Formats: sequence, C-alpha cells, structure tokens
Amino acid sequence: MSIQEILAIEKTLINRIESRQAKIGIIGMGYVGIPLAVASGTAGFSVLGFDILEDRIAQLNACQSPIGHIPSGALEEIQKNGFEATSDFSRIGDCDAIIICVPTPLDKTREPDLSFVTSTMDMISKFLREGQLLALESTTWPGTTNEVLKPYVEKAGLTVGKDFFLVYSPEREDPGNAHFNTQTIPKVLGGDTRACRDVGEALYSAIVSKVVPVSSTAAAEMTKLLENIQRSVNIGLMNEMKIVANAMGLDIFEIIDAAATKPFGFTAYYPGPGIGGHCIPIDPFYLTWKAREYGLHTRFIELAGEINASMPSYVVNKLVRALSERGKALKGAKVLVLGIAYKRDIEDVRESPSVFVMELLRDWGVDLSYSDPHVPAFPVMREHKFDLESIELTPETLAQQDAVILLTDHTDFDFEVIAKHAPLLIDTRGVYRRRGKIVPTA
Amino acid sequence: MSIQEILAIEKTLINRIESRQAKIGIIGMGYVGIPLAVASGTAGFSVLGFDILEDRIAQLNACQSPIGHIPSGALEEIQKNGFEATSDFSRIGDCDAIIICVPTPLDKTREPDLSFVTSTMDMISKFLREGQLLALESTTWPGTTNEVLKPYVEKAGLTVGKDFFLVYSPEREDPGNAHFNTQTIPKVLGGDTRACRDVGEALYSAIVSKVVPVSSTAAAEMTKLLENIQRSVNIGLMNEMKIVANAMGLDIFEIIDAAATKPFGFTAYYPGPGIGGHCIPIDPFYLTWKAREYGLHTRFIELAGEINASMPSYVVNKLVRALSERGKALKGAKVLVLGIAYKRDIEDVRESPSVFVMELLRDWGVDLSYSDPHVPAFPVMREHKFDLESIELTPETLAQQDAVILLTDHTDFDFEVIAKHAPLLIDTRGVYRRRGKIVPTA
Repeated sequence: MSIQEILAIEKTLINRIESRQAKIGIIGMGYVGIPLAVASGTAGFSVLGFDILEDRIAQLNACQSPIGHIPSGALEEIQKNGFEATSDFSRIGDCDAIIICVPTPLDKTREPDLSFVTSTMDMISKFLREGQLLALESTTWPGTTNEVLKPYVEKAGLTVGKDFFLVYSPEREDPGNAHFNTQTIPKVLGGDTRACRDVGEALYSAIVSKVVPVSSTAAAEMTKLLENIQRSVNIGLMNEMKIVANAMGLDIFEIIDAAATKPFGFTAYYPGPGIGGHCIPIDPFYLTWKAREYGLHTRFIELAGEINASMPSYVVNKLVRALSERGKALKGAKVLVLGIAYKRDIEDVRESPSVFVMELLRDWGVDLSYSDPHVPAFPVMREHKFDLESIELTPETLAQQDAVILLTDHTDFDFEVIAKHAPLLIDTRGVYRRRGKIVPTA
Repeated sequence: MSIQEILAIEKTLINRIESRQAKIGIIGMGYVGIPLAVASGTAGFSVLGFDILEDRIAQLNACQSPIGHIPSGALEEIQKNGFEATSDFSRIGDCDAIIICVPTPLDKTREPDLSFVTSTMDMISKFLREGQLLALESTTWPGTTNEVLKPYVEKAGLTVGKDFFLVYSPEREDPGNAHFNTQTIPKVLGGDTRACRDVGEALYSAIVSKVVPVSSTAAAEMTKLLENIQRSVNIGLMNEMKIVANAMGLDIFEIIDAAATKPFGFTAYYPGPGIGGHCIPIDPFYLTWKAREYGLHTRFIELAGEINASMPSYVVNKLVRALSERGKALKGAKVLVLGIAYKRDIEDVRESPSVFVMELLRDWGVDLSYSDPHVPAFPVMREHKFDLESIELTPETLAQQDAVILLTDHTDFDFEVIAKHAPLLIDTRGVYRRRGKIVPTA
C-alpha cells in the first residue's frame, strides 16, 4: 500500500465517525457494554450490541435495561438511532468500530482468564476487514492488546496502523456514582501506532467528554491496573488499621474522618467486610501475574489481597465473640445479613464480601437469612449458591434474630429501626458509633 | 474541690484565652514551634518560645527566622505582641497554655525515642500550676499523652480535667505548601477529659481557622499517624510500581498522570529516590512499635518502609548500569547530585534520600559534589557528615561530570541547561521523558 492509500483509509474512517455514518459494534452487553452503547447511541451513532446470551439480547431488543442505573428509556432512545442487540457475529463486518467489553476474571488459581477475549477474537476475526477500528476495554495486563489481539488481526491479513486500527481504552464504569457517568468520565486511550491512536481519539471523543491519549496500549493497560491497585491497597491498609485501632479501643471510622479534614495529602478510604465487585479484587492480580515474567513480585498487591480476603472471617470472629459474651454459640444461631450487593445502592453481587461471610456462616451451621432491597433473590452465580430470598425488614423479623450483621450500607435501610430492634448488631460499615448491643467497626 | 471551684478554674482560663490575656509558652523552637508562635502571636497572644539551644534563642530574639518559609518580618510583628525566646524554663509558671513541639525521632533500632518529650516534662513539671493547659503537638503513638504526660501532671499534685487541662493536637505543618499554612490547616484535637477538650478548643480556635475535636487524645494521636502512614504506603506502592513499570518499559510518571485523570477514586502519589523529612520515614513506626504490645504486626507499614528505604540503592544501580553501558565504572567517576533537601523548594535535609544516595556513592568511591540552591553547605547532622558546599550549576560544571543525578526537583533548577550539558542524567523525579543520555524514572 502506498502512503496515500493508507492515509485515505484512515481519513475515510475518521470522516465516517465524525459524520456519525460509522456503525459501532459493542461486544459484551453487560455492566460496561450497555452504558457504552447508550453513550454511543446518544452521541448519534447506530450501535450493534453483540452478546452470546439470547435472553440478554431479547431483553435489550425489548428495551428492558438489566442494569439498575441505566433506565429502560435510554434503550428506547438509542433504538431510534438504530440500536439493536444480536448474537450474529457475522454482522461484525457491518461495523466501522468494534469495541470489546467482555469480562476478564481470574481462574481458580488466581491467574488471568482471558478466555472471553480470545473466544471473542476467535468468533470475530474472520469478519474483520480493511478500514475498521478495534478497541479493547476489558481490564487486562500490560501488553495484552499488542501480544494477544494484534496477532489475530494480522492473521486476518490486515496490517495494524495501515488498513486496520487497534487501540486499548479501559472502561472506568462506576455504578452508583451520582456525579459521573460513562459520558463524563475521561477516557484513557493508547494506540498500537500513532494512526491507531488518532482514529481511536476520533471515535471516543465523539462519545465521551474527554479522551486522555497515552503513548502505547500497554501504558493504557497499566493505567487501569494502577487505579484499581491503589484502591485495593488503600482499602487493605484501612482494614489493617481497623484491626490495630480496634485492639487499641479506637474507632477507625472516627480517625479516618478526622484525618480527612487535612486539606491535602490524605484521601479517605474506609475499611469494611472485604472488597467486592468485578474490579478491585481481581484486576491487581493481572499485574502480579505479568510481573512474574520479569522476575518481580508485586508485594503490595499480594498483601492487600491477603488482608482484604481475610476480612470476612474477621467479621465472623467478631460475631462469634459477641454471641459468646451473651452465652450463645454461633452454631444454630439465627443470623440476618443486611446487604449482599458488593457496595451501596447497587444490585451487583459479584465477588461480594457478603457472599463470603454467608458461606462462612453456613459452614458454622447458622440459620441464615438476608435482606437487600436491591437483590430480591440470591442470584445464580458460578461459584456460589444460596436458595434464599430477601426478607422484609420489620421490627419483628429483626427481633427474631440472634444477631444481625450490617455488611452493605444501602441508603434504603432504616438504620434507626435496625438498631432499635436487632438484639445484637455487628456493624462493618461505620454507620453506628454506639456500643452496647452494637459492635462497631467490626 | 467543689464543682463550682472546678468550673471557675476552667472559666477563668477560657476567659483569659478569649480576651488574649493568656500567655502561651511554646516549647521547641523548630519547624513546628516557630510557625505556631507566629500564628499565636498573630492571633493576639503574647508568646514565650522555649528552647535549650542558646544560638536559636538569640537568633529569634534578633528576629532572624531560621526557616525559609517564615519571613523574619513575621517575628518582628509578634515581638510587638510580646514574643520572646528563652531558655529559662522556670518561666513556664507564667504561661496559661504550654504547647510542646519537640522532635519525636526513632532510635537506632527504629523504636520511638520519646526522650525530648520526657526531658521536657522533667524540666517543666515543677513549674506546672493550677489553671494551666498543656498541649502536646509532637507526633507519637496512641496513648502517649495519657500514659506518659498525665503521670507527670499528677505527680505535680494537679488533677487533669479539674484544675489542669491536658490535650493532644498534632502538628500538620507542610513546609513549602503554597496553599495552606499553620493558621489555615484544620487542627485535630483530643482532650484527656471533656473539660480538657473544651479548653483546648478555646485555645486553638483562637489561633487556627478550624479545630476538629475527636473523642480522646489517643484518637488524635492515631489520626496523625494514619495520615503519614497512608502517605508512606502510597509512596511505597508507587515506588514498587515504578520498578515493575520500568521492567516492562513503561514510564510510571506517564501512567500516574493518566490515572489521575479519573475524577474519583484515584490520588496521585509519585515515586522517587526514597522518602525524607521528619515525618513520613519515622512516624509510621511509632504505630508499629505500639501495635506489638497488642500482638499485632503492621505489615503495610513494614513493607512501605522496606521498599522506600531500598530506593536509594535502586537509583545507584541505575547509575551503575548507565555508566557501565558507556564503558565506565562508578568508582572514581565524577558524580553531581542535584538537590539534597528532602523535597522541592525547602532547605530541610533531615532523613533526605539524597543523603542516603550520597553515602552509597561515597561508599562506591565516587568523586562527589552536590548543588542545591536552598542548602549552601552540607549541614551538621547527627548521623551524616559531608564536607561539601553546593557548587554553582553552569554548563561547565555540568559538562565536567561523568553523571548527574536529579534527586530533588527544586523549581529553581534550570532543567533545560541541566539536560543540555550533563553528559549523563539520572532522573528520579519524572522531570524528563526523553531517553538517550537521560535515564528517566530512575
């Protein structure tokens, strides 16, 4: 190809993006893909949403949002612009830009499980064609886009940076954030080549308010990991400090709030019953795994992981102790768990510490129930199974318990009623400062 | 004493504070005591500054400020309000409020060295009297005020919370901070009793813009430690991430800056040649020491300490490698260190990582020099000794070196001239992104 031909391909794609003729294919209709489809549709693009789950596709085409903070009306709006969900991956060829938003979990030995990404590439690579942009948004180790995705593109006979464009731009979704959404969160982006980055910038700056270009796809991959590593480490630190403060008879929540009055240099992170969600407990270990290739050991990540993972048993120990002081054993006790979502005001229970606490309690032989206004029934999960439905919180249901554990501080909970009627209350979220029947900073 | 008598003592002291009749004695005329004396004098109080160093006393009484960011004019101003420096500790009896601002270092085995505090109490306790407030500002382990200071007061025949008031309020000085000073940084305060806290609030709210009361002196002590622990851990994390990023060929400064574009949940901390100053390398170990009493091990603090302390040799290794690639040995090489203060734009070299780097270089047999616009001559220190004066930075002095190491990024440095004339430049502060003769992110 001559330079003229190459530039013409790039220019055509950028023109199609700027004129909104470009069709965007988003693969993975979940917590990342759906908000991105809405943002893209709202920006004026016709969006094709790909998924392998037929139920999900039917639901989306019926404009029923499966995500609490995405209203179904938003799907109706983008449908007017051509939004459609499909499992027909041959339609990848119709797309000018393809954005991969599939999960990147860990396997059972805590190593990266890139199978959703690679199976996606297996499905789509025969439909890739000249003049397309391929973007990966899934969190992953530095080097993935270049080492894993690029070979698929090359095998398809395309040349990255010439007739095909490859970028990495990490999702920064924060469900339940009242101040920022997909459209207003700045988006970091690295290209495999300069031309890739230019095309990527053209696409994303049409969808979100600010694009932050970095020097490579690996730099963008590392950026996302660093964000979540810092969060995991700081929560781990606060969990360790909670244990120390507790032993000294101090209230770690009071201390964090006092420290947060320093107008520089301190950022409040809070301890809790562990960490949850699809990011913080998982992403850091992608770097741990990759660092081993360089003979390096990521000690902060390992330490944070260890301390954070130990918090559910810390909470259970607090319960055991408080019951014991009342002459009761945990075995056979009636225990009500408040909140099973991994954080406040959302319905997502993935990696939720509540689930780990519940499993420990089941192990101890507890008569278990839960209440969560956002999760009416314990969902089907790959690794966890409970045949439970959320019970209504009333003075009676609270009074019937031997103990109540507050694990997720949903704003919908009536904290006064809970404190009044629970015979014993273990508070892992710093809602209560009182003692007596309330065990604070557990 | 009757309740009426007790309340009368408290009321008299608060009245004397509010009417500015109260005399404030500040013990320790250093980086904390002098700014506090200025803030107190500016608030209208007559201040007595106590110290054991006669030179320092003469200097202060001549209105010569020994601290870069405190202008001598500020001392002239408070002198009009009665400010005087003295080594006559019998004058403690003249003071209504006594504030201790002495150093709390670590000893050689990294255990708390409270000797400046206890020797202060030894000197002043016979002059303590009814109706005084005693405040400790020195950073220390949770429990110090209650376990160490209170017994001195009681041995003097006084009763804390009745005829004498005892509080802990940690200093939060940040030399070189352009946005906040002693007067505008909120001040955390815990009292030994409720009455102590009330009197302490009366005093400090007359001096600073905001007082943050907490439930105990131990809570206030822990608050200060938590602030510096978080800082140490986050810098440690970034130093570890620098090592990983470096191995992967990534620029950690670029990645941190990209992560910092996330408008929530990420706070930028930067790696460097280590940590310095009188707080961050020291304070965390006060908690480590105290936690052992409870059978607890503060693992994040230890890990951060270990990684941060290893950075000077990391930097030296970068230098050795860069010289080696140019066919040179470090032994006998001419190496110029830029910046020996522990951070930008200040003159304080206490615990400065530059000093540790210099000691390593001396050990390797380097022909060493340094340049620091804030430190004209290497100061007298207890643990470190160099017979060196700051050299002028010129194209010639730079060109004469085998290598230049940028350790403190003072804004006064002419970074262009440095990059142009240094034959080899090791950059530990992320000032340069270029490669070639510049070794970035070292």
